[in-house]
Amino acid sequence: MSGMGIAFATLPSFAYSTGLKANVKKPAFTFQLGIASYSLRKFSLEDTLKMTKRLNISRMSFKDYHLKLDSSDELIAETVKKCNDTGIRLYGGGVIYMRSNEDVDRAFEYAKKAGMEIIIGVPKQDLLPYVEQKVKLYNIKLAIHNHGPKDTNYPSAESAYVKIKDMDPRMGLCIDVGHTKRIGREPEKDLKDFFERVFDIHIKDVDQANEKGTTVEVGRGIINIPAFLKEAVRLKYSGTMALEFEKDSDDPLPGMAESLGYIRGVMAAL
Amino acid sequence: MSGMGIAFATLPSFAYSTGLKANVKKPAFTFQLGIASYSLRKFSLEDTLKMTKRLNISRMSFKDYHLKLDSSDELIAETVKKCNDTGIRLYGGGVIYMRSNEDVDRAFEYAKKAGMEIIIGVPKQDLLPYVEQKVKLYNIKLAIHNHGPKDTNYPSAESAYVKIKDMDPRMGLCIDVGHTKRIGREPEKDLKDFFERVFDIHIKDVDQANEKGTTVEVGRGIINIPAFLKEAVRLKYSGTMALEFEKDSDDPLPGMAESLGYIRGVMAAL
Repeated sequence: MSGMGIAFATLPSFAYSTGLKANVKKPAFTFQLGIASYSLRKFSLEDTLKMTKRLNISRMSFKDYHLKLDSSDELIAETVKKCNDTGIRLYGGGVIYMRSNEDVDRAFEYAKKAGMEIIIGVPKQDLLPYVEQKVKLYNIKLAIHNHGPKDTNYPSAESAYVKIKDMDPRMGLCIDVGHTKRIGREPEKDLKDFFERVFDIHIKDVDQANEKGTTVEVGRGIINIPAFLKEAVRLKYSGTMALEFEKDSDDPLPGMAESLGYIRGVMAAL
Repeated sequence: MSGMGIAFATLPSFAYSTGLKANVKKPAFTFQLGIASYSLRKFSLEDTLKMTKRLNISRMSFKDYHLKLDSSDELIAETVKKCNDTGIRLYGGGVIYMRSNEDVDRAFEYAKKAGMEIIIGVPKQDLLPYVEQKVKLYNIKLAIHNHGPKDTNYPSAESAYVKIKDMDPRMGLCIDVGHTKRIGREPEKDLKDFFERVFDIHIKDVDQANEKGTTVEVGRGIINIPAFLKEAVRLKYSGTMALEFEKDSDDPLPGMAESLGYIRGVMAAL
């Protein structure tokens, strides 16, 4: 099933979907673009998949708005089928908060039933040894998501990295570049420093490098997106680069489209 | 009034509109992004300006859908005021077809009353000497728009260039990169070859390099956009680079946003 994702390497993806050959030579990248479904939190599953398809994206991580954590086996199977039928690979779940052993149990069962490769999660720090057991048992990766200033659990990628660096190699990070910038760090530096454990990325842009910073269309903010993407290419990042667009929740499509266009434009010019 | 346009050089334009300082160093470009209002031909003037603003664009050329060629002086003044009040510079009109002296008279009066710098036009070839007289009289530039295969008037930029190259230096071209590609030419080569007379550009992407080619989101088609933009930067193109997006006429905003995002991304990475 992991073969369903359209590799960024096959750009332009239009050529993929229509069978047309492009005459533009593109470099082969090792990662793929995706969408974190939190961006589409106000929309039904059907509309979410339709919009994702329109954005020419084939990898998605689901926030529980689109598939509740306590869903029945039937609903999970049906939802995954809808994703597959649309040509979208539901590769991960998140952000999933885990405050108890039961939360951890539920998250891994959920991910297993949905065929997810990864849980983008925020487990309480004292649950990490229990999460590690589950990672080994299920062979599903954990990617801890940093949430910036005021997050007492994992404000930065580093704060998560130091906790998991000696654990199972499937214990890792989802670097949220927006929250990274909001805490005054350079996303490309954190990507490099913690790279061995970076399994997922939330790509976005923010308007300020402090706790007041909020999401804007990628390219309109203060994050050096070309520098970040260049570093991801140099390091041969091979996970998903998932757009998480928090702005305009009632009408996010234009901003998401602009953001993905910007990322693709940078990639094409690198 | 020409000072109203937000120079691409002041990127990120978000910083312009909010007064925030960006910490990302951008190269200074000599041209500005715009929109050809044909892209929004199914929308009212108000919605068109609102969408353009949302796309963070401040320069626009109007197709007659948004201001009819036979509009009263009052309507023209009112429309220009609405543009100005939204922070949008109505820099040109087009594409305007001219099949008679009367059409030429009307076009130049219209452009003058609206304060336009340029007419993106398709005058019948035998009208060119008359158009040249008007260009001199009004000091408004003419930019002949190429329309690709099947256009018997100006299929390529070259076919227009050879007709105007010895005329007044304000007689020039609007290179439509899509129609250029559709006729099997490389837009960056035509831009270089006819550069001294290129006053306007319609930027877009197409899916095929022949007459069946149709508009797709910039970056999804076969035009080498990075090569074209790189050439525009190298040549220090100083006109407007106006997106003309023909696809999804009932709901063009996401595709326009993706296209402009892609162009901005390429520019940021050059």
